[in-house]
Amino acid sequence: MPSPTTLAALRTFVAERDWDQFHSPENLAKSISIEAAEMLELYQWGQAPDQERVEEELADVLIYCIHLANRLDLDIDGIILSKLETTRAKYPVELAKGRMVKYTELAENSEP
Amino acid sequence: MPSPTTLAALRTFVAERDWDQFHSPENLAKSISIEAAEMLELYQWGQAPDQERVEEELADVLIYCIHLANRLDLDIDGIILSKLETTRAKYPVELAKGRMVKYTELAENSEP
Amino acid sequence: MPSPTTLAALRTFVAERDWDQFHSPENLAKSISIEAAEMLELYQWGQAPDQERVEEELADVLIYCIHLANRLDLDIDGIILSKLETTRAKYPVELAKGRMVKYTELAENSEP
Amino acid sequence: MPSPTTLAALRTFVAERDWDQFHSPENLAKSISIEAAEMLELYQWGQAPDQERVEEELADVLIYCIHLANRLDLDIDGIILSKLETTRAKYPVELAKGRMVKYTELAENSEP
Repeated sequence: MPSPTTLAALRTFVAERDWDQFHSPENLAKSISIEAAEMLELYQWGQAPDQERVEEELADVLIYCIHLANRLDLDIDGIILSKLETTRAKYPVELAKGRMVKYTELAENSEP
Repeated sequence: MPSPTTLAALRTFVAERDWDQFHSPENLAKSISIEAAEMLELYQWGQAPDQERVEEELADVLIYCIHLANRLDLDIDGIILSKLETTRAKYPVELAKGRMVKYTELAENSEP
Repeated sequence: MPSPTTLAALRTFVAERDWDQFHSPENLAKSISIEAAEMLELYQWGQAPDQERVEEELADVLIYCIHLANRLDLDIDGIILSKLETTRAKYPVELAKGRMVKYTELAENSEP
Repeated sequence: MPSPTTLAALRTFVAERDWDQFHSPENLAKSISIEAAEMLELYQWGQAPDQERVEEELADVLIYCIHLANRLDLDIDGIILSKLETTRAKYPVELAKGRMVKYTELAENSEP
């Protein structure tokens, strides 16, 4: 992930503009936070946001995530599946089902 | 994007735990911002962060982005390519090459 | 704001540790975002958070805001009152009362 | 903190517009994160931002922090000084001087 076409399009976009010089991991980490907050702003007062705006802001977050993955040569599917494995272990179905509490509290909060 | 395998794994993870009830778009938007900040924290003081931590935090951001896309039935490649089209138009190569200024200032700042 | 005592305590804390070298405006701006997200995390799933945790996280956001104001020699009451003036003009009581819509939409959305 | 005048001005601003209904702690926590990211955006690409913009964005973060403190009846100086006490204990001068590492790593990283 993303599709080879999407990845290629993003790499070309950056290369054509000679923007690699600005895409330090730190700058990209800032950009991801900034775009994430722009998406959150669509839900700031609990309103139902415009679908198109959500699509644009979510795309912005994803685009900077992909730029960072490209910059660090990370395999996106690989890091997602690896993290999912960790989370699965922290939130076993029998304890976490229907409950959203931090894994550190799962055990103590679970009924016998 | 992501690969059908990754998408399926994420859907199963949520379904098994009956967590759809917690995954309102607003809650997921908050989660994306929270995870983005955890990644930014790795760069808080300009240090070079541990590669594994970066992979984990980037994966967290991507995972919540995918949960949101799933929830809203968005095609991830579609919204990325569509947003990229818009950005291409705002940042034409001849004006944006090697310069990182907001598109609204590109024209006025460009040399004749 | 804050009280001279609080301001002095924060300046001394930084000076004693020779941390001014780390407190660039950019680093402090990152820290404010990071701490703000830690507070948001307390409300991530709509739960009622622990009061003490909220106090600690809100304090962290305020502390970095004050460090930044100190670094840039800003008068905190001054910038707040000045911004409030701007916001008052953008959200006149007669249009904004009981409605939370962006000022750009206040006029068009208002009833005759 | 802030000065009684500033506090009163902020309370009046909200009361006049009947906005308490929108100022749930969760909404205010979102707003603090959103405004913090708008300030971070001024430093997104490492540029030196316009001083006036920084003052406005920092004021926005502080204003929402004060709204939240008002909503939760928190004494701002009190929570700051209390948090500073905790941080002082975590970062003793002899270990933390001139070093910016997480307190959990201070001991192990310190020279004998």
